[in-house]
Amino acid sequence: MTFQYLRDPSGRPAWDGVLPGRPEPFFLDRGEGEHANLFGDLFTLLLSGAETQGQFGVFTSTCPSGDIIPTHSHAGTHEVFYVLDGAVRLFVQDESGRQRTRVLRTGDFGFVPAGLPHAYRVEEAAQLLGVVSGGFERFPQRMGTPTDHAGAQPPYVPPIPDLLAAARELDVELLPGFGWDGV
Amino acid sequence: MTFQYLRDPSGRPAWDGVLPGRPEPFFLDRGEGEHANLFGDLFTLLLSGAETQGQFGVFTSTCPSGDIIPTHSHAGTHEVFYVLDGAVRLFVQDESGRQRTRVLRTGDFGFVPAGLPHAYRVEEAAQLLGVVSGGFERFPQRMGTPTDHAGAQPPYVPPIPDLLAAARELDVELLPGFGWDGV
Repeated sequence: MTFQYLRDPSGRPAWDGVLPGRPEPFFLDRGEGEHANLFGDLFTLLLSGAETQGQFGVFTSTCPSGDIIPTHSHAGTHEVFYVLDGAVRLFVQDESGRQRTRVLRTGDFGFVPAGLPHAYRVEEAAQLLGVVSGGFERFPQRMGTPTDHAGAQPPYVPPIPDLLAAARELDVELLPGFGWDGV
Repeated sequence: MTFQYLRDPSGRPAWDGVLPGRPEPFFLDRGEGEHANLFGDLFTLLLSGAETQGQFGVFTSTCPSGDIIPTHSHAGTHEVFYVLDGAVRLFVQDESGRQRTRVLRTGDFGFVPAGLPHAYRVEEAAQLLGVVSGGFERFPQRMGTPTDHAGAQPPYVPPIPDLLAAARELDVELLPGFGWDGV
């Protein structure tokens, strides 16, 4: 159960309007941005396609140890994983079907081009910085739930129909049962 | 004087080929990437428009305290400043002519849309992560000089004609004498 909207009768999160929504300059202090919970992760959107003429979006995610993002792909979205803190094992399958994996630690970098199956598992509590093709960056809000809290919170597990609807909307293909036998 | 090419008779830096140059997955350990010196900064390119279908590029820069990037603008390039470490004062003038400045510290974020005059000054030795519109990300190589060394090095000051030629090529408008009186 979430109470974050009780403060504002309009039901809008307090961060609404923090991003300008058009290409104009702005600054954010550490932790500021549009927050959303999805499973065990706290996502904070720093920049959206609305500010970059659709080119790219930027967000951070704070992830507990043991967290798993299951295998999926997104046909139109390139995705960057830059580790700000902690350790994350990234899995990706390239176009030839070759599977690769690497544990990424602070300062390490991974790139997953559009359309390739990928997943990750948080090996040590981590903070990631993500860069994605413009338009995809609000997936945590669409799949998860907005929140005004930047701190640790209980996991938010979306109802399956909501998750599937968000995946269709975002052109995300969920790949349950996908095997990582090659790594 | 630089000796970094003496190791390879082809004259190509050792990092040549580290980025795939097309949309395929890859990983980089901390410090890996395409290095270039420009003034006092060490830039490391992590991702280029060649991997993102021209959407965006990602780099880090390591900057000594007191370093100044003078005022300039780039008509076709949006630019993100995310502070990984240290402190940087960012200056930007918006479309209405209003000037803004903020000291950005670790975890803080700044956005400069295409076409706006901006500059920054390094208040405490810093590492920044930059995200830019695809095609602009190799400006440190075009304006500066490639290097194989990821560590501290003497500043590289480009000859003025080279700097001006690179600015024209990258659609960068240098704005010498620009005043920041409003901040």
